[in-house]
Formats: sequence, C-alpha cells, structure tokens
Amino acid sequence: LGATIALDAMGGDLGPQVVVSAAVQVLEERPDLKLILVGAEDLLAQEMGRYGRRVQDRLQLRHASQKVEMGDLPSTALRNKKDSSMRVAINLVKEEAANACVSAGNTGALMAMARFVLKTLPGIDRPAIISTLPAITGHTHMLDLGANSDCTPEQLFQFAVMGSVLVRAVHNIEKPRVALLNIGEEEIKGTGRVKEAGRLLSNSDLHYIGFVEGDDIYRGAADVVVCDGFVGNVALKSSEGVALFITHYMRQEFQRSIWTRLAGLAAMPVLRALRSKLDPRGYNGASFLGVRGIVIKSHGSADAVAFANAIRVADLEVQKRVPERISDHLASLLAERRAV
Amino acid sequence: LGATIALDAMGGDLGPQVVVSAAVQVLEERPDLKLILVGAEDLLAQEMGRYGRRVQDRLQLRHASQKVEMGDLPSTALRNKKDSSMRVAINLVKEEAANACVSAGNTGALMAMARFVLKTLPGIDRPAIISTLPAITGHTHMLDLGANSDCTPEQLFQFAVMGSVLVRAVHNIEKPRVALLNIGEEEIKGTGRVKEAGRLLSNSDLHYIGFVEGDDIYRGAADVVVCDGFVGNVALKSSEGVALFITHYMRQEFQRSIWTRLAGLAAMPVLRALRSKLDPRGYNGASFLGVRGIVIKSHGSADAVAFANAIRVADLEVQKRVPERISDHLASLLAERRAV
Repeated sequence: LGATIALDAMGGDLGPQVVVSAAVQVLEERPDLKLILVGAEDLLAQEMGRYGRRVQDRLQLRHASQKVEMGDLPSTALRNKKDSSMRVAINLVKEEAANACVSAGNTGALMAMARFVLKTLPGIDRPAIISTLPAITGHTHMLDLGANSDCTPEQLFQFAVMGSVLVRAVHNIEKPRVALLNIGEEEIKGTGRVKEAGRLLSNSDLHYIGFVEGDDIYRGAADVVVCDGFVGNVALKSSEGVALFITHYMRQEFQRSIWTRLAGLAAMPVLRALRSKLDPRGYNGASFLGVRGIVIKSHGSADAVAFANAIRVADLEVQKRVPERISDHLASLLAERRAV
Repeated sequence: LGATIALDAMGGDLGPQVVVSAAVQVLEERPDLKLILVGAEDLLAQEMGRYGRRVQDRLQLRHASQKVEMGDLPSTALRNKKDSSMRVAINLVKEEAANACVSAGNTGALMAMARFVLKTLPGIDRPAIISTLPAITGHTHMLDLGANSDCTPEQLFQFAVMGSVLVRAVHNIEKPRVALLNIGEEEIKGTGRVKEAGRLLSNSDLHYIGFVEGDDIYRGAADVVVCDGFVGNVALKSSEGVALFITHYMRQEFQRSIWTRLAGLAAMPVLRALRSKLDPRGYNGASFLGVRGIVIKSHGSADAVAFANAIRVADLEVQKRVPERISDHLASLLAERRAV
C-alpha cells in the first residue's frame, strides 16, 4: 500500500508554489503515493490549478489558517499557532491520516511541535536531527545536527542507536559503523561526556568503531557519526562555508582572463559534476529521529528539486518503517537493561 | 633589534631536516633574526653541515637529550621529559634567552609545558589556540582550536579579548569585528554559555558584532571568531575534510577521459591557484595566546615551507609584542572591574 504524506505548504522561504510543484513531480514518479497539501486553501487551489488533473486525485488539500514564521520562537509557535500549516501537518501524522510529514519551516518550532504532538519514543530522552553527507567513499550520516545543544553521554548513546537503525533500514547497510565525533587522542582533548558515551557504545551491540575527527566525516570513515547538536550544526555549516568559498573562488579565477574563461569552458563538465555532487539539494530532507512518527525537515531555502527530495526521504522512511524499527531496537535494549 | 627564536627541532612527523631547512630559509630572508635549534646535537650538526656558513653564525645549537612523542600523554611528558627538545625550547623563552619558540610536536604536551613553565597572563584562566583561515573577503582568525574542550562564558570572553588584541597588533585592523560562533537565532538553539558570553562581550570595549554561524567563518563576516576548543577543532577539521573531498573529487573527474584530462591541463593555472589558496602550509603557525611568552604550534606534518611560515608568525608576534599588548589590555580591564 502506498504512503500518504502531509506537506506543510506554507513553510520555507520560497512559498507554496515550490511545495506544490515538488508534490506534482513526486506524484508523477510514484503512482501509489498520496500527498496532502496543508495551508491557505485559496492560495493552494490556485497553485494546483496550474497543473493537469492527472495527479490531482492523489493530491488532497487541507486548510490551515495560520503560518509559522521563521522568526517565531518555538514556544510561541507552540502556544499560538495551533491552526498553522506546520501544526496541522503534524496533527495529521498523529491522527494517522498521514504516515509522515514534511516541512521547510522554522526548525525549532517544527521540533517543538513534533515533540509535543507526537511525543518521543520510549527510551528516548530527546529527538535528534540526522542528515546524509557526501564522502570520498560512500556517504556519512550525521546526528545531531542542531536539535540539542548539550547532550549527556546517555543521549549521545541513544542518538547512536537511532542513527544505526535508520542507516541499516533505509540504506541497507547490515552493520553500520558507528563513531563518535571527537578532537583527537590526547589527554588534553575530548570532553568527559564523549568519553563516557564511548564506554556505553563499547558495551552495546552496535558496530562501534571509536572516535573520529572532523575530517573523517568526508573520508567516509564511519557510516554514522554521532555528536551533540551544537557541534554537528557547526561542522555542517562550516563545511557548507568551505564549499561556498571554493566555488566562489574558482568562479572568480576562471573569469580572470580570456584564457582562463576558455579553460573554464573546457572544464565545465567537471565543474558541473562537482557542483551536483556538492549540491545540498540532493541531500535535502533531514529526519527528526526519536519522535513517534516521521517528520522530515526540508531546508528553508529549498526549491522544488530539493523539496521533492525531502518528500522522497519521507516516503522511503514510511516504506522502511523507521520509527517502528527504532522502537523495536529500543524495546529490546530496555528489556536487557531491566534484566541486568 | 632582531628576535631570537627557539625551534623544537625534534617535534613534527618529518624530522629535524625539515626544521633545519626552514630555519635556513627564514634566516636568509631576515638578516637580523637569530634562531636556536634545540635537539639531538649530533643529528642537528650533521643537518646543518649541509648548508653553507652564510647563515650559520645566526643559527645556534642547543642540545636536548629527549624527545616528546606524538603518543605521549601531556602529563607524562611534563613529568618525564624535562630534557626534551620541546621543554628546553620553552625554557629558553622563560629564561629570556629566546623571544619565542616554535614546535611541530604533540599539541597537548606543548600546551601543558607552556602553561607550566611560562604560566598564564594575569586575568587569563586558560590559554587558547588561534589560527588564521582564508575567507571570501580577507581572513578570519579563530580561537580556541583545541586547547579547551569546555569553556565558561568568562573564558570565552577572555579568548575574545586575546584574539582582538592579536588581530589588531599583528594584522593592523584598528577595531577587529569579534563574533561568537553559535548555531542560529532560535530559542531551541545556542547554549546558555554562548549567550552569557555574548552579554559579557556586549558590555565590553571590544567591537562585538554578535553571533555568527559556521558558514560565516569563510565569508569573512568577522575578524575574530570565538568558540570553545572542541567546537573550533571540529569546525577546522571538518573544513579540511571538505577541501580534501573536493580536491580528491576534481582530480578523479579530470582523469575520467582524454577530454577531461585536456580540460584539466587547460584549467591547471586556476586549480593551482586554488590549491595554493587552500594550502594549509600558508596558514601554518597557530599561536598559544594567554601564556607569558610566545609559543607557536606548527602542524605536525609541516614541511619546510610550512614550518618556515610558523617561524615567520613567531617573528611577527615578537616584533608586535603580542603578549605585552594582551597583558596591557587585560590590566586595564581588571582595573576597571575592580573599580566597579
């Protein structure tokens, strides 16, 4: 049976046309998928009018009178935006009218609403954000990317369990290599919390391979890299910054003279391949792991290509029953602990 | 009057020949500089024998019977390696036989020895490591890069003061823009410590511009970016990882066919410019700020080009009297606080 996915059509910087266009695109690819657009009914009906009837029977419309703004505080959004497109999309998951939801809106508000409405899984203190990054060999999946600034060793351990289950289920890696992000082997380095999390992981059934450093993320040294949300977010943003710096610099250099312009033309296929390899749109769609339901965060500035990718991530997690699998793994873990 | 700089000739992965070659190179550039090579006398004498007498009267030799290994714990090195090249080089600074020292050895041991022998400046709890990074506009100076895993708001504030004084003194920026590294503006984000450090900085005489995120490092949004050593080290290493990933990927793509190989040849000048722009050797030489003396850490894998750069950094800090300036700034700060 195909999935039904609720889309927050009002989130994101580029407005509902991006969400509607992405929805139509993915519906055309997946004949058994259903999507629910949540937002201002008149606006959405108008957008939908631009597309043929072909996919429209699988594209439902659900009115929501409010919109969470990027500047809204999570607590305020939670209290005052109960009929926002974001909240209604999450409610649909809670009511089992949808199997998952996708939003490009305010991350903090989305996390607060997801936790409040869906609740966390048993054995999970706090949800975490995971995303996929390119690596020299394969891909790396990193969490937490910004939901939790400070984490206890036990929370880092829980992140590792969730990340490992996700990568196994969705990316078909039998025994994902799990590593903790640290800053070296020396005594002066590494916080006590990371070391303690390392002890917890060493005694677990995960394939824990020890500490890795920042550069190992892009080497593909581990399948799952675990860190607190502050560190993960800084690592991710710094990486984006370097990539931006490099592409900016190359563009500038290739425009320096007629000769470098010609060289740039000759090198175009390679530069294009690089750009597409680094294109964050191809990696768009971060999962909120640890809540009772599937919530996917799209980048705020996502275009239709990127938003469509986030819908695909949601669909895949529905097919692979990610929350149930995490739940099962945690249940056996909790049973084991009780037995000890 | 020219500076005298002590070099730990045994630190680093590539051995004393790199240090001696770098020393000779810098001595040839700076006619009033003196250098002291610290390490195994016979080995160093042999290395020096390979160079002409021209610079040798400004290149002294100081024997040290031990060597700090990369795997040594800082505490062990501090206790058991009192006649190591690293320790003797720092001692020379303490005894005022040298104005600064440079080492490519074990960072943790170097920091431990620098703190123990030289002591911290009044008003400074812990020294921090600062280095220069390339940015789209100008350069960014970031600290701490790994000396302190967890920092109090007061310590982050002290880092900001030290970074600002250094950048003003050495890089001739009258009012360096100081920013705190954070992960966004939302309620869910940002630790209490960073926010509290922000309050301290807002009430200071520094040109504090607020929070920046990881990508801003490479935009040149601030002259001084302040964070704890865990976050700073991860940001730095992640950035190196991305740069490595990109160069690796481009090399691979340019070798895909005869056409891409030709394109690669045409693009060579641009790729070479990029490589030199990203070359960590050009940025080699991180300063330990906050100790009573100038201690420069070279990358462990530094070659002669890179190590020479670290020596130049040391020389510049001697000329600009960096520790004295930090000390002066802190003294007026402490006097102000006492007055309140």
